[in-house]
Amino acid sequence: MLEIVHNPATDVLNVIKIGGKLIENKELLDSFLKDFVQLKGPKILVHGGGNKATEVAEKLGIETQMVDGRRITDKNSMEVITMVYGGLLNKSIVAQLQGNKQNAIGLCGADANVLISKKREIKEIDYGLVGDVVIVNTEFIKSLLKQEIVPVFSAISSTEEGVLLNTNGDSVASEIAIAMSKTYTTHLFYCSEKKGVLQNIDDDNSVIDELNPENYQQLKASKVITDGMLPKLHNCFEAINRGVSTVYLGDAELLKNGAKHTKIVH
Amino acid sequence: MLEIVHNPATDVLNVIKIGGKLIENKELLDSFLKDFVQLKGPKILVHGGGNKATEVAEKLGIETQMVDGRRITDKNSMEVITMVYGGLLNKSIVAQLQGNKQNAIGLCGADANVLISKKREIKEIDYGLVGDVVIVNTEFIKSLLKQEIVPVFSAISSTEEGVLLNTNGDSVASEIAIAMSKTYTTHLFYCSEKKGVLQNIDDDNSVIDELNPENYQQLKASKVITDGMLPKLHNCFEAINRGVSTVYLGDAELLKNGAKHTKIVH
Repeated sequence: MLEIVHNPATDVLNVIKIGGKLIENKELLDSFLKDFVQLKGPKILVHGGGNKATEVAEKLGIETQMVDGRRITDKNSMEVITMVYGGLLNKSIVAQLQGNKQNAIGLCGADANVLISKKREIKEIDYGLVGDVVIVNTEFIKSLLKQEIVPVFSAISSTEEGVLLNTNGDSVASEIAIAMSKTYTTHLFYCSEKKGVLQNIDDDNSVIDELNPENYQQLKASKVITDGMLPKLHNCFEAINRGVSTVYLGDAELLKNGAKHTKIVH
Repeated sequence: MLEIVHNPATDVLNVIKIGGKLIENKELLDSFLKDFVQLKGPKILVHGGGNKATEVAEKLGIETQMVDGRRITDKNSMEVITMVYGGLLNKSIVAQLQGNKQNAIGLCGADANVLISKKREIKEIDYGLVGDVVIVNTEFIKSLLKQEIVPVFSAISSTEEGVLLNTNGDSVASEIAIAMSKTYTTHLFYCSEKKGVLQNIDDDNSVIDELNPENYQQLKASKVITDGMLPKLHNCFEAINRGVSTVYLGDAELLKNGAKHTKIVH
């Protein structure tokens, strides 16, 4: 009898974003990277920068300008971001993966034109060197995955003219996942501080198991889901609506079997 | 009549190392990168870091320890090198190449295990996190060249255990050229301050046109070639002896037609 073997390793892709405290805390990061190495099949890692860039900028005497709680990225700040996200954090994560026998490669958007972005339009506020991804070079990413090399992205994109831009890490992850979903069944994972979307913001264990467009609208209307979570959840549903199969929200343990999380579905 | 067309673009590889003032001076670097983009066929760029790392380290309050004129790379210094060489300089060069329509990718040794090194043995002095390249992942480099993507290397290698090591940029370039010479007819270019090896160290125009093993020995014996040049020329002849076709020494204009230079041959 001829048996057709379905090999999930070749057609399921996991895109995992890590950020916040997970990046800053060596122990959490070590443990997460070990789980990441265990994950079978094609996978992509996207990392934010945590507070390290602000810390380095301060020491270098570069002022971090904030308007309405958002960072303005001037030329000096972009240099620090390129050093810290594109250099120190990105290469340290890649080296650590290699040390755990996981082949990997560190990328910013300019590398192989992998993430082409447009500078954000100036409206009331000029956020400076900040961009939004418009093209993901899926051919190059696929060539790496075929060689079993894990792409590790820092949240830096590049314009077509070769200007590096600070880019929201959550959006980088969702844009990559959306673009790759044309080829792979793609799952997107956001790992940060919380175990998921909380029913009660003061109770870390009140994780909402599943969100879909209907209960999301209800929870928004009843103010259970508050302002802080909205941009992230917007990214999640955008991903779901544009081809990603499932989005998972959780903490540093999200990749462990049986870990609490919020699952976002159609 | 059937004509066999010899296409040098496919079997000649140029490996170009830039360092020193060329990296620090924006105008020189811009002009050099334009020449580099014009260069036909497969090519690889290797860059040092100039004084930027020392400058950043000073601002961050990290002391640069020197013994006998050589830098000791402790953990903090290695972090700065990873930020400045692996991040800021590497990604800026890649972005600038992309802006000039030259597809490129920035790499440190840990990326795709492209430069595996051994930590230098401790003899009288412990130089710290300093390594010498022992394996070049030529398969991965070849896959990039086939996609017409220029690999841009910072002078950082990695042990098999994933420890990033500060590595001499000239040696990185020669080890890559030697390894690639098994597949390609390989030329190695060192671009720095001087137009080549000088007959008279006080006269920048007294460039020696050609060096071969014989006149090299003579010039060493007669003290025309002095201590400062010996490590560099050792690298050059090592490259020649281990498979590289020609080594060229020159300044930022080395890639321009008719530029003065020293050619090193068998």
